[in-house]
Amino acid sequence: MKTNYVHGYDPQENIRLQDQASTLVELLHSDTTYAIGSRVLEAGCGVGAQTVTLARNNPGALITSVDISELSLAEAEQKALDAGLTNVSFKKADIFSLPFEEDLFDHVFVCFVLEHLPSPAEALNALKKVLRKGGTITVIEGDHGSAYFHPDSEAARKAIQCQIELQHRAGGNALIGRELYPLFVKAGYDSVSVSPRMVYVDASRPEFVDGFIKKTFTAMIEGVREAALKAGLAKEEDFGKGVQALYRTGEADGVFCYTFFKATGVKK
Amino acid sequence: MKTNYVHGYDPQENIRLQDQASTLVELLHSDTTYAIGSRVLEAGCGVGAQTVTLARNNPGALITSVDISELSLAEAEQKALDAGLTNVSFKKADIFSLPFEEDLFDHVFVCFVLEHLPSPAEALNALKKVLRKGGTITVIEGDHGSAYFHPDSEAARKAIQCQIELQHRAGGNALIGRELYPLFVKAGYDSVSVSPRMVYVDASRPEFVDGFIKKTFTAMIEGVREAALKAGLAKEEDFGKGVQALYRTGEADGVFCYTFFKATGVKK
Repeated sequence: MKTNYVHGYDPQENIRLQDQASTLVELLHSDTTYAIGSRVLEAGCGVGAQTVTLARNNPGALITSVDISELSLAEAEQKALDAGLTNVSFKKADIFSLPFEEDLFDHVFVCFVLEHLPSPAEALNALKKVLRKGGTITVIEGDHGSAYFHPDSEAARKAIQCQIELQHRAGGNALIGRELYPLFVKAGYDSVSVSPRMVYVDASRPEFVDGFIKKTFTAMIEGVREAALKAGLAKEEDFGKGVQALYRTGEADGVFCYTFFKATGVKK
Repeated sequence: MKTNYVHGYDPQENIRLQDQASTLVELLHSDTTYAIGSRVLEAGCGVGAQTVTLARNNPGALITSVDISELSLAEAEQKALDAGLTNVSFKKADIFSLPFEEDLFDHVFVCFVLEHLPSPAEALNALKKVLRKGGTITVIEGDHGSAYFHPDSEAARKAIQCQIELQHRAGGNALIGRELYPLFVKAGYDSVSVSPRMVYVDASRPEFVDGFIKKTFTAMIEGVREAALKAGLAKEEDFGKGVQALYRTGEADGVFCYTFFKATGVKK
């Protein structure tokens, strides 16, 4: 394999992709800063996609990253090792029965996790137990119903709806971003504040056209093709048209909008 | 009529409404500032809703506000008079055949106008003629397809769709916000830049719950009830459920999102 011709392996291409990732990382993470010596729990770190950013942005914080999957944890640990991080420890744990004493952490950080849980409200309650009084929780989630675009396309909207329905059937909620405020309030957090982070993409932002429209959002929708067809949610031809219409929004006269939501709250 | 009990006439209520309006005005208009002595054309001023803000924010600019409707112009003129504005003149004019010499204006300002025109691209071309080289155009438009909310409601989405369809049948485009970038580029403007202005409302922002969800957006959807029923776009019961569901998003656990788009470009 000529790796220098593969997308993402050409050094120049890599820098460009990192630029795109940096812009999105900046948008979502730049205002999450913890004091030196703070004990931070990252709940549901998965393969460590956010762990590296969190640890780099907060070199003085002592981060404990947990996930229920050993396989994911191993990958996250390797990622932290490769990045030379020394302020993160990893532990296998279930959010709903955390192996930590109460009030242990100064901060809890959760990114792209609640959308997969059948009971996000219970997760927020469980996380509150291990957070000290006055400590903060930060949650970042997407909302696939926030996606709209030009040219508008019913086929594209239906293809997105397949992903939303499949995630719903799997017990998750692809529209959870808009719901963070009431979820935080219901879980009893104080000083709840939600800040939408909109990704607006037109041809003047080519790094987002490629990195966000194509390689992130449309790739994700394309990824549920087999499952959507198998579940009878779409016909192959219609789903294909929807995916094509999503790629179409990345052309010179296209526009794509998507919003992430970042919520913070304080334990009373 | 006891005017002090009518919404908007009680002095305290009035202050509160002004606060809400100020927040929205700030969000949309605060970064539109023109140098002393600049000649500014406000195209499609209607009853002067934006004229007062534009003139107050730019006391040194010489503003010419035009509209095709004499009735609206008279109202706008009265509004300017009441506000004590001295830097605005009004003129009856059609955007598509403006009674001005070419290259006359330093800036063109258009707010909530293109959404009503069958040929917004032609309007942008016509406006370019009266703008000097190096002068700027600013356009602010909404996008009703950018509205989403919690609790989500199919009935609410269908009621909104009635408004979008009716505006489409009237030759307009209620989804024009997302389309400003390609429209500007197609019209040949340079340095085109579009900035989305999202209105995010939850119970922590009560001034927006009342002022935006209820009195602005839902009131507008309610306003097309008769037309929607007459056009056979909805059954009365279903439309009513949609409107109720929109009001429901203003309750303590509700969330409402809407995005305006502000575009600027320079005449080459």
